[in-house]
Formats: sequence, structure tokens, C-alpha cells
Amino acid sequence: MADVGGIGADQLKSYIERIERLEEEKAATATDIREVYAEAKGNGYDSKIMRQIVRLRKMDEQDRQEQEAILELYKHALGLTESAE
Amino acid sequence: MADVGGIGADQLKSYIERIERLEEEKAATATDIREVYAEAKGNGYDSKIMRQIVRLRKMDEQDRQEQEAILELYKHALGLTESAE
Amino acid sequence: MADVGGIGADQLKSYIERIERLEEEKAATATDIREVYAEAKGNGYDSKIMRQIVRLRKMDEQDRQEQEAILELYKHALGLTESAE
Amino acid sequence: MADVGGIGADQLKSYIERIERLEEEKAATATDIREVYAEAKGNGYDSKIMRQIVRLRKMDEQDRQEQEAILELYKHALGLTESAE
Repeated sequence: MADVGGIGADQLKSYIERIERLEEEKAATATDIREVYAEAKGNGYDSKIMRQIVRLRKMDEQDRQEQEAILELYKHALGLTESAE
Repeated sequence: MADVGGIGADQLKSYIERIERLEEEKAATATDIREVYAEAKGNGYDSKIMRQIVRLRKMDEQDRQEQEAILELYKHALGLTESAE
Repeated sequence: MADVGGIGADQLKSYIERIERLEEEKAATATDIREVYAEAKGNGYDSKIMRQIVRLRKMDEQDRQEQEAILELYKHALGLTESAE
Repeated sequence: MADVGGIGADQLKSYIERIERLEEEKAATATDIREVYAEAKGNGYDSKIMRQIVRLRKMDEQDRQEQEAILELYKHALGLTESAE
């Protein structure tokens, strides 16, 4: 089916099939990631906190420390830190 | 607690509380929306298709028709239309 | 248009219009929320950290403190705390 | 750093590093997918419609046809089909 209504059907099909293969690959990697979190959870680690750690490690060190300092400041201002009780 | 570490704690608190009230309002409206879909579903309507209709009605009429025409063209090119079987 | 292909067109329309009105309300509230963050930002507050504060304040106090303690433990274990440098 | 506050720091680190490698792999595949869409766009294909096609091809054939029939019915009931003008 070379041409349909002016579009290259074969070319479109090859793009779609390439995308589908890559989407499968991506889904498989996502499953692998979930399995690592599940394995860690099975060994007593908290997967929610692990996700936070992964996010923090992606950040630039200085940005991370600045944000943590501001967070502490705001938490203190709003009475969210233990010492505020 | 007027000032904490150079930030206006009261002002920050009032912003946070305004946001929290608005977030509550937004969540209540989201619940109302879910209830309408549930009511419609109870009367035999398909909520997934209703969501598509809501999306389509938001679109500019001409854009919508153009996109539907391209979709039909691509579906035909890839054998997704009945006639292609 | 009472009935179309066995479905109550008027009833469907009224459900769709109710949903559209509620979606508009929800979108307006979301805009109000963005405006509060923008106003706070204009007064020097960090909207990203404010969002974290809003999330933290939604949490049960004890859960929040437990999660913060585990986060500190994991950060220390992975050298993400200042003292670790 | 074998043990920190009762948790196996090395084991935690190895989980985190495995996750980070997999997240990188997933991000790279996502980039590849975007590149295919960009290449197709460069050749005149509509990437938004291509994404719809990818979604449709993932569906069970019969489900897809049933949903398309209901969508046409609802569109007709609400005057969204050309013939309704």
C-alpha cells in the first residue's frame, strides 16, 4: 500500500512500528525500575523515600542545599519543625 | 510570628492558607465532575467516550474536522478502518 | 433531538453541559491558585518551596515526621547531608 | 559505609544506582521516540495524529471498533458530525 490519499502509507507504517518498538522498550525498562523498588521494599527500604533520594541526587548540589535551607526556613515560619511545638 | 529568618511568616502563612482554601475548592469541583460522570454511567452512558466528547467540544470546529480527516486517512493507510479488512 | 440511535440525546447533552460548566469552574480556581503563587513570588517567596509546604501540611503530622526522619537517614547513608562532606 | 542508623548504606546505594542507570536508559528511549516523531513531522506527518494511531493500535480491535461506534453515536446526538450541520 504505497500511497493512500497522498500520504506514503509504507513510510508512515515504518515510523509507527519504530515508535511501537521503542515504546515497548521504554515500558520494559519502567517495569525493571518498579522491580528494583519492589526488591528494595522487600529488604525493608521505603520506596517513596528512595524516589525522593533519586530526585535529590539528580539536582545540582548547591541548588539542592539552597532549596533545603529555604524549606527549613518556611517550615519553621509555619510551625512545621519539631522545635516549633 | 512576624518575621522568621528575614521572611514575613504571617504573610507566607496567609498565602499558604489562601492556596489551601482554593485547592479544597478545586478538589470539591473535581469530585462534582466525577459524580456527574458516575450519574451518567448509572444511566447507561459511557464515561470514557463522554470525556472524548468534552475534549472534542473544546476544540475549534475546523481544527477538529481537519484532525478527524487526517486520522481517517492514517487509519485507512494502516488498515485500521473496517473497509481495509 | 430526543433520541438518537437509542440514546437520550437531550439527557446526554445536559450531562456534557454540566461537566463543561464544572470544568470551567475548576479551571478558574486553578488560575486563582497560580495567581496567588505569582503574587507570593512577586513578594520574594519561592513558589516551588511553597508547593512543598502545601504538600507537607496536607500530610498527617506523625507520618510527615517519620518520612522526614527516614529521608535524613537515607541522605546521610548516601552522603547527601552537609556533615557527610 | 556499611551501616548507618540500622540501614545497609551500601545496599541502599546499589539499589539507587541501579534505578538511576535504568532511569537514564528510559530517558534515552524517550528521546529516541521524540526523534522519530520529529523525523516524521519533518516528512510532513502529523505527530499528534500519529500518537492517536499508536494508542488505537494498542487497543483490542473489537474494543476499538465498539468505542468508535459509540463516539460516532454521541457525536451525532450532540451535533458534532458534519451531517448534523
